[in-house]
Amino acid sequence: MEALRATFSDREPRGLYAPIDYILDLGGKRIRPVVALLAARAFGDDEDHRLGMPVALAVEVFHNFTLLHDDIMDESPLRRGQATVHEKWDVNTGILSGDLMLIQAYQHLCNCPDPAALPALLHTFNRVATGVCEGQQYDVDFERRMDVTIAEYLKMIELKTAVLLGGALELGALAAGASQEDADHLYAFGRLTGLAFQLQDDLLDTFGASSDTGKLQGNDIIRNKKTFLFLKAIELLGLEGREELNQWFAASPEDPAEKVIRVTEIMQSVGIPEAVAQLRDEFQEEAYAHLDAAGGDAATKAILKDLAEGLLQRVS
Amino acid sequence: MEALRATFSDREPRGLYAPIDYILDLGGKRIRPVVALLAARAFGDDEDHRLGMPVALAVEVFHNFTLLHDDIMDESPLRRGQATVHEKWDVNTGILSGDLMLIQAYQHLCNCPDPAALPALLHTFNRVATGVCEGQQYDVDFERRMDVTIAEYLKMIELKTAVLLGGALELGALAAGASQEDADHLYAFGRLTGLAFQLQDDLLDTFGASSDTGKLQGNDIIRNKKTFLFLKAIELLGLEGREELNQWFAASPEDPAEKVIRVTEIMQSVGIPEAVAQLRDEFQEEAYAHLDAAGGDAATKAILKDLAEGLLQRVS
Repeated sequence: MEALRATFSDREPRGLYAPIDYILDLGGKRIRPVVALLAARAFGDDEDHRLGMPVALAVEVFHNFTLLHDDIMDESPLRRGQATVHEKWDVNTGILSGDLMLIQAYQHLCNCPDPAALPALLHTFNRVATGVCEGQQYDVDFERRMDVTIAEYLKMIELKTAVLLGGALELGALAAGASQEDADHLYAFGRLTGLAFQLQDDLLDTFGASSDTGKLQGNDIIRNKKTFLFLKAIELLGLEGREELNQWFAASPEDPAEKVIRVTEIMQSVGIPEAVAQLRDEFQEEAYAHLDAAGGDAATKAILKDLAEGLLQRVS
Repeated sequence: MEALRATFSDREPRGLYAPIDYILDLGGKRIRPVVALLAARAFGDDEDHRLGMPVALAVEVFHNFTLLHDDIMDESPLRRGQATVHEKWDVNTGILSGDLMLIQAYQHLCNCPDPAALPALLHTFNRVATGVCEGQQYDVDFERRMDVTIAEYLKMIELKTAVLLGGALELGALAAGASQEDADHLYAFGRLTGLAFQLQDDLLDTFGASSDTGKLQGNDIIRNKKTFLFLKAIELLGLEGREELNQWFAASPEDPAEKVIRVTEIMQSVGIPEAVAQLRDEFQEEAYAHLDAAGGDAATKAILKDLAEGLLQRVS
């Protein structure tokens, strides 16, 4: 995304700005800015993305801010196969550069060319950003709790990831002057697609190969994360299997290889990959219903649907 | 400040919101919101602070966000005589609750009743917030450097603290519909008062008693901070004294008592308290000239001047 690189500067102090350029340059799918631009296009934005670009940059910078701070909290060494900011620099640099990225996200939003749209954009952005922080806190809380329900887990991933995808679409639509009703339908499309995608991501973490994802395989299992996979397995297992799974999730062995292999086997034994795929598909269908219900240009909405399909087809 | 406490909520998750209520409830002088309200009053705000209150809350929440994250970076155990957030909870809580406070600061700003004022308020707020982050980075950088100049140090404290005091005044004036020229004069008044105050604060850190400040006495010396006191002493000392001072600032003894006593003596021997007081008074005079040059209600400006006097009279 060239517009993002155009935001890089050689401003001082470099210790503050270089990590921002670094994380924004790591790449990623850029799915949030792309859907923001498409949502704006669906409601009449021009080919230069005059109306959509400020919100597209705002959501991408905000997203990378959350990655930067989450990686510190999760002590993650790698992001997209490269050293995380706190590894390459240090934790303090990660905190402060992240703070500035959050400010820069608002700055991008404020560049929207129509001042009359600004209050609604800020209102949506504040709501979404607050939800993302709440989601991260639930994520941290749930690591310490053994009694997380499936409903609580789905609420957490909704806040932590789905809300921002929905927000990107809502902001794009609002920036181009869509009605709040149309923007709400796009938000719901994004939120449900985000839920489906997160289930997919959880699936990949356990059942995908690490060369595909750039992450450690079985990272969620190693860190005892109560993902949908774990919670659904607990629901489906008999007493004996449930005890074994809980025991594995109460332990943090120095060499986690055996744990990862055994937990994966247990999950497969009760059809977890299939169960996850089913719920994912339910979310996906509901998402498309909202996309159909939204106004806006049909051809652009078809591109949004293709994008969602592509996101969710990474494993069968 | 009752309006601040009114922002407390029992929203979930508590792990995210409780630390925010905690730090906002620790107190402090509330100097930034007070001057924001006075600046708005000087340009016609009513007695209920309808125009000034959103920016007053924004700057106070932003200020406390910076304290929260700075305390993590500085590994400070105490803030206003109480446990810092990362001590009472943990570092991750401090990072995330701080992030949400930055979002909440923008939320308060967006509550300004006049949508037409919003673009200018956001423009100023973004500029100020960026400056504060840059100042914190310079502060961190300077701890590792032995060649910081007095000019660099003054630039750092301007960004880290003075810009926000100026920003509070500028935002208050803009919220009440002041011209940018008047708002700029109030900004300069705040910026120069902030510089004077920071010099005072450095003076107190070394020459004040810890029961007055709620901080460890000589904390800057213990942490080898190149404050104005250190830099001016290096300038004024002979070769021998300079070498001794540099040696003390290259060491981090387990028991710092002797270091604090000896460094304080060295500084006194070349008249540092007097030199700091002189520069402080120069900033103060220039600050008052800008206050006089600004438009607005004279009686309210007189209160602003009294406040500045009070801030700077804490030691003679």
